[in-house]
Amino acid sequence: MEKTKKFLLPEKEIPTQWYNIVADMPTKPMPMLHPGTKQPLKPEDLYPLFSRAASDQELNETDAWIDIPEEVRDKYRIYRSTPLVRAYGLEKALDTPAHIYFKNESVSPVGSHKLNSALAQAYYLKQDGITNVTTETGAGQWGTALAFASRAFGLELAVYMVKVSYEQKPYRRSLMQTWGAQVIASPSMSTKAGRKILTEHPNYQGSLGTAISEAVELAMQTPNCRYALGSVLNHVALHQTIIGLEAEKQMEMAGEYPDIVIGCFGGGSNFGGISFPFMRHNILNGKKTRFIAAEPASCPKLTHGKFQYDFGDESGYTPLIPMFTLGHNFSPANIHAGGLRYHGAGTIVSQLLKENRMEAVDIKQLDSFEAGVLFARCEGIVPAPESCHAIAAAIREANIAKEEGKKKTILFNLSGHGLVDMSAYDQYLSGNLINYAMTDEEIQKNLDRIETLV
Amino acid sequence: MEKTKKFLLPEKEIPTQWYNIVADMPTKPMPMLHPGTKQPLKPEDLYPLFSRAASDQELNETDAWIDIPEEVRDKYRIYRSTPLVRAYGLEKALDTPAHIYFKNESVSPVGSHKLNSALAQAYYLKQDGITNVTTETGAGQWGTALAFASRAFGLELAVYMVKVSYEQKPYRRSLMQTWGAQVIASPSMSTKAGRKILTEHPNYQGSLGTAISEAVELAMQTPNCRYALGSVLNHVALHQTIIGLEAEKQMEMAGEYPDIVIGCFGGGSNFGGISFPFMRHNILNGKKTRFIAAEPASCPKLTHGKFQYDFGDESGYTPLIPMFTLGHNFSPANIHAGGLRYHGAGTIVSQLLKENRMEAVDIKQLDSFEAGVLFARCEGIVPAPESCHAIAAAIREANIAKEEGKKKTILFNLSGHGLVDMSAYDQYLSGNLINYAMTDEEIQKNLDRIETLV
Repeated sequence: MEKTKKFLLPEKEIPTQWYNIVADMPTKPMPMLHPGTKQPLKPEDLYPLFSRAASDQELNETDAWIDIPEEVRDKYRIYRSTPLVRAYGLEKALDTPAHIYFKNESVSPVGSHKLNSALAQAYYLKQDGITNVTTETGAGQWGTALAFASRAFGLELAVYMVKVSYEQKPYRRSLMQTWGAQVIASPSMSTKAGRKILTEHPNYQGSLGTAISEAVELAMQTPNCRYALGSVLNHVALHQTIIGLEAEKQMEMAGEYPDIVIGCFGGGSNFGGISFPFMRHNILNGKKTRFIAAEPASCPKLTHGKFQYDFGDESGYTPLIPMFTLGHNFSPANIHAGGLRYHGAGTIVSQLLKENRMEAVDIKQLDSFEAGVLFARCEGIVPAPESCHAIAAAIREANIAKEEGKKKTILFNLSGHGLVDMSAYDQYLSGNLINYAMTDEEIQKNLDRIETLV
Repeated sequence: MEKTKKFLLPEKEIPTQWYNIVADMPTKPMPMLHPGTKQPLKPEDLYPLFSRAASDQELNETDAWIDIPEEVRDKYRIYRSTPLVRAYGLEKALDTPAHIYFKNESVSPVGSHKLNSALAQAYYLKQDGITNVTTETGAGQWGTALAFASRAFGLELAVYMVKVSYEQKPYRRSLMQTWGAQVIASPSMSTKAGRKILTEHPNYQGSLGTAISEAVELAMQTPNCRYALGSVLNHVALHQTIIGLEAEKQMEMAGEYPDIVIGCFGGGSNFGGISFPFMRHNILNGKKTRFIAAEPASCPKLTHGKFQYDFGDESGYTPLIPMFTLGHNFSPANIHAGGLRYHGAGTIVSQLLKENRMEAVDIKQLDSFEAGVLFARCEGIVPAPESCHAIAAAIREANIAKEEGKKKTILFNLSGHGLVDMSAYDQYLSGNLINYAMTDEEIQKNLDRIETLV
């Protein structure tokens, strides 16, 4: 390993506002539609589902800066600012002229960036007088974050955990239970959505789409209960901009500005979180930074999906969202990066991709772990399987810089650590990991069956 | 959870020297003896086993302050300073007038304080031109730390991992392998010590004592190879004093000074690390701080052991150490706090305990996890099973403060997080955890069979 260069912000420098990129976008994303009326959504339509503040934030197109409540900032102080680190070891291993930086969101007590939005959402629900909250979780990162946040603000939480992760990642389940949450494997018999899929496909291993349906259904049927989502939606990405806003100040401390910003991509929360604050300088100040979303080749909605209105969940309970999608009932392969197993992208990212303001790459599972192990050996942090995708993309760009003989500054978000995902590394190191990737034929077949909903 | 109060040192305030308490002790510990000659050990006797610097530090009785090499300080910067946190949430849950602080060593990339000494030892070995290193690990905390450190300084590492942990904690094994270490379940057939015990007790689940014997044997038989130990010895506690030295400055930032300092106790490294810097003020400046070592009731050498010369390992390869011991071939119950399953205490702590400069308490396994879950729910960090013992002791003292109606300032060391130990929490939460504790009769029977070696 090479010389350590870590940048931390003093407490008083931690940003006090989130950045709402929609306000600065020259072309706004197409509106989300009410699933019944197919009319553009109003905040009131969302009040039965989310907190009022989150609902208002979801549709806010005018305010570029939104105050972070003092109570949320107080909880952020438990782990923020997170370090910005110059990855000298990785640079040396790649023998690249590129300067590589990563923002280390793995230092949060739940091990990932997910806490940034979980704390905000839990706080707003508490403010509304809500007592109970439901959610879904894939790999378990979001579920553990909301379990922590629910505990912090005194809410009761029920988590539908995608069955394959429930079985592959028992540690994540125990973690949520340790913080006092109830965890149910999804699909379950506790909801209509779950019963339907279990009677049609008895051995179904679950998907984020199904788990969302179950969590939404339970929230709608429980008094004084709301639902919280960990990605995809605008208000979630908004809360995650704390990542990029800190990174912006830290890059300044390092005396550099990124040529390329990279995040792994599931629904868009960590990618948006690291990217949007820098993207505002592309939009407003003519900067030419490239933004790259790294998605798994087994769930390639950005690189191979269709742009159209689709549901956010499997059963069609959510609003219709204008998104790059593989279809709301797409069932991705059981990759270890469970947080990236989602069929669609949020409206903001979908609009930005349509306008070529950002790029996307797809990464195969084995390539992601190869990158993750190299990173662990060079930088000392074992990355989450999701984050390995961002690392793989960063390595590609660093290798291109080497071929071109150009000094480029690359920044990626290390969204979480992999300490609770070591069974995946075990499989990789012992040669037993499968290199899931969709073939062109599979992709085409899947695209052909996507229904047009609007 | 309550208001967050976290104290971090700016980088330039991180201590640049370790504190060697032996230099200030009015009565020095009795000398370690050469196992063959039974004469007091000289540094040269240790050179075949450890790095020269570590050997010299081990027997240094004169220098109170020892410079931390710049290369080690550079690696410390990856995760140091670690936060000092006021545990408001725990205080509120206990309704105690006590102020409770914890030093959060769990933020290191290996998840525990062990890295503080691993980095120092690996650096010194590299300086000596050594290429290979062996060690043992119980719960896996030390093994992962040395795997990280060996990678950082370019050494090849072989780890003997106590068999019960190898099986209970596969994630720790994968973690060491991810950083490139070789991991062998102990007892193994790869050493004379391992073969002996496996032929006598074919299903033996292993102990730290046996794993040490194996690691020492391999180091002695391999060219250009040395051995590194993660606790017990003076130089290890020395490296860990970075914890207490930082905490001292941070308590000053908080405007308080501890009445009670607590650490969990296996061999003494984290306890010594948090305690010794504060104890110097008891020795030199008449302070009256109490120091409490929290050990498991299943391995109670401080509260129920004998003070005498004993070996540090099962097979008798190490020097004879004047220690509180349960006998070098004591086989503790399979508690989850694998890092505390060691038969003896280091010479410094043993001397301090004899002189009543510190205290010890024994904690039952269920009590430790009860404390750990309460802490996780109040403070948001899931503690390592080892650290749960310190928390349990801190809670006891906070409850006493409440009974007495006294404001006391309690500081404990959170030596590590439990994210890689969630199976233990799972067992606890599902009511399947056993409350191992030795009965008076078992303890007496064990004491009666301890051989007198000198």
